[in-house]
Amino acid sequence: MAEDDPEGASEMLARLGVPGKAFVVGVTGPPGTGKSTLVDRLIGSYRSLGLRVGVVAVDPSSPFTGGALLGDRIRMTKHADDMGVFIRSMASRGWTGGLSRATSQAIRLMDAAGFDIVILETVGIGQSDIEVVGVSHVVVVVIMPGLGDGVQASKAGLMEAGDFYVVNKADIEGADAMVVNLLSLFRGRPRSPPVLKVSALSGDGVETLRSAIDVARSKFASGDPALRLKGIRGMIVETARGAVLAKLASVSESKAGKLAEEVMAGRLSVEAAAERLAR
Amino acid sequence: MAEDDPEGASEMLARLGVPGKAFVVGVTGPPGTGKSTLVDRLIGSYRSLGLRVGVVAVDPSSPFTGGALLGDRIRMTKHADDMGVFIRSMASRGWTGGLSRATSQAIRLMDAAGFDIVILETVGIGQSDIEVVGVSHVVVVVIMPGLGDGVQASKAGLMEAGDFYVVNKADIEGADAMVVNLLSLFRGRPRSPPVLKVSALSGDGVETLRSAIDVARSKFASGDPALRLKGIRGMIVETARGAVLAKLASVSESKAGKLAEEVMAGRLSVEAAAERLAR
Repeated sequence: MAEDDPEGASEMLARLGVPGKAFVVGVTGPPGTGKSTLVDRLIGSYRSLGLRVGVVAVDPSSPFTGGALLGDRIRMTKHADDMGVFIRSMASRGWTGGLSRATSQAIRLMDAAGFDIVILETVGIGQSDIEVVGVSHVVVVVIMPGLGDGVQASKAGLMEAGDFYVVNKADIEGADAMVVNLLSLFRGRPRSPPVLKVSALSGDGVETLRSAIDVARSKFASGDPALRLKGIRGMIVETARGAVLAKLASVSESKAGKLAEEVMAGRLSVEAAAERLAR
Repeated sequence: MAEDDPEGASEMLARLGVPGKAFVVGVTGPPGTGKSTLVDRLIGSYRSLGLRVGVVAVDPSSPFTGGALLGDRIRMTKHADDMGVFIRSMASRGWTGGLSRATSQAIRLMDAAGFDIVILETVGIGQSDIEVVGVSHVVVVVIMPGLGDGVQASKAGLMEAGDFYVVNKADIEGADAMVVNLLSLFRGRPRSPPVLKVSALSGDGVETLRSAIDVARSKFASGDPALRLKGIRGMIVETARGAVLAKLASVSESKAGKLAEEVMAGRLSVEAAAERLAR
């Protein structure tokens, strides 16, 4: 419903009352860093504590990579028979603003459905992808050693978004150097976020990560208003962003061509036309 | 000025009259596909025709990758002494909407400064990154053989954005398979975009690409109104998007916290709060 009928989901959500029972963990980072495998491990870890886990995975839905993508999802389907786990991949295909809204709605629907933990997995590359994790109570940024071009693509925004930094694939050469590298980036901040070495593949370090996250989770569970406010604020802003971008797209569809003609005829500047469109 | 004083640039641009002498080529694609090397080759090719070339390179500005990034830029600085070439890297660091506006402005300033060709290079991963190339007259999407996770990150948007598809690093195994793969994706469309094998490193195929682009360029040069309208329309929409997102960010800063408190107190739904914020 969040994907196909956002208006309907909206109405339903308005009746569901104040959100905020589920603890939302955002997991983001450049492609290829093993986010899905890590999410899979976290699901297992939370399940062993008896907690119900929902996952919203924002899928880049490339037409090229049926293989790789399917691989990730198949890995996750080992939880397919577990009624305490619900995994939903949401495609980002061709949406303008829609993703922000649908993600925020899906998380709130899972929240209302009684999941204790909701994990939001996104590829943290574009600014907008990073902003999506703003709906989370804590954000885990996943990177890996020796990331060349992949990290080149990661925006500085990633370095501000994280509450926890995971150097995944810790068995690869360069893991320690990457940890040092990260810590030096955080030097000078009032409080450096924890940097943890993990091997999602073998499971090493996953429990340590989960315990680190648990500090925030127990704060949240005991009603910490700052964390709850943060999550709700993120949902409001993301939903608004979605609405605004969708509106701009629909207005552009009907008005931008006409405005462009005015500009071409010299009757309007691009700036003035943009201002009209924006207004 | 476009980066640091968008209002000032706006005023100046409003006085510069109708944009649209420069032919704008967007070059986008996942990280690591060799876009910068290809852009470097295109600069050389256009220069050999005596055309002046401006480049706007949207840099992900990762704090990790001084090295890789600098490498790209150094490669381009072989044109540093050439007065017919102007290259500007624009950081996407922490901007919300600002990038759309600054990119559109920078291109128009280069246009006004008399460049014949403006190349806009972006990492085409996030939806917003892809939308930035909407200001271009033609869009070249660059991919490479055997792209696993890198392509996994590429959104389907890429498959709709391109007028030309380049399989770069054509000497790598799998190039032909990738071409076939792409063509099969385009089957069923009224008109399949050209798919070209290129080795930006050796230069093979670059002239063929440039000639293919030249068909659109000569249409544009002969005053084709559809192409000019397309470019101007893109600039209007991008500038408007920038303005709208910047406004939302500033309004969120001052209002979202208060609205979140209302939601937490049960006096407002997330949807209603988002609608207020959006309005």
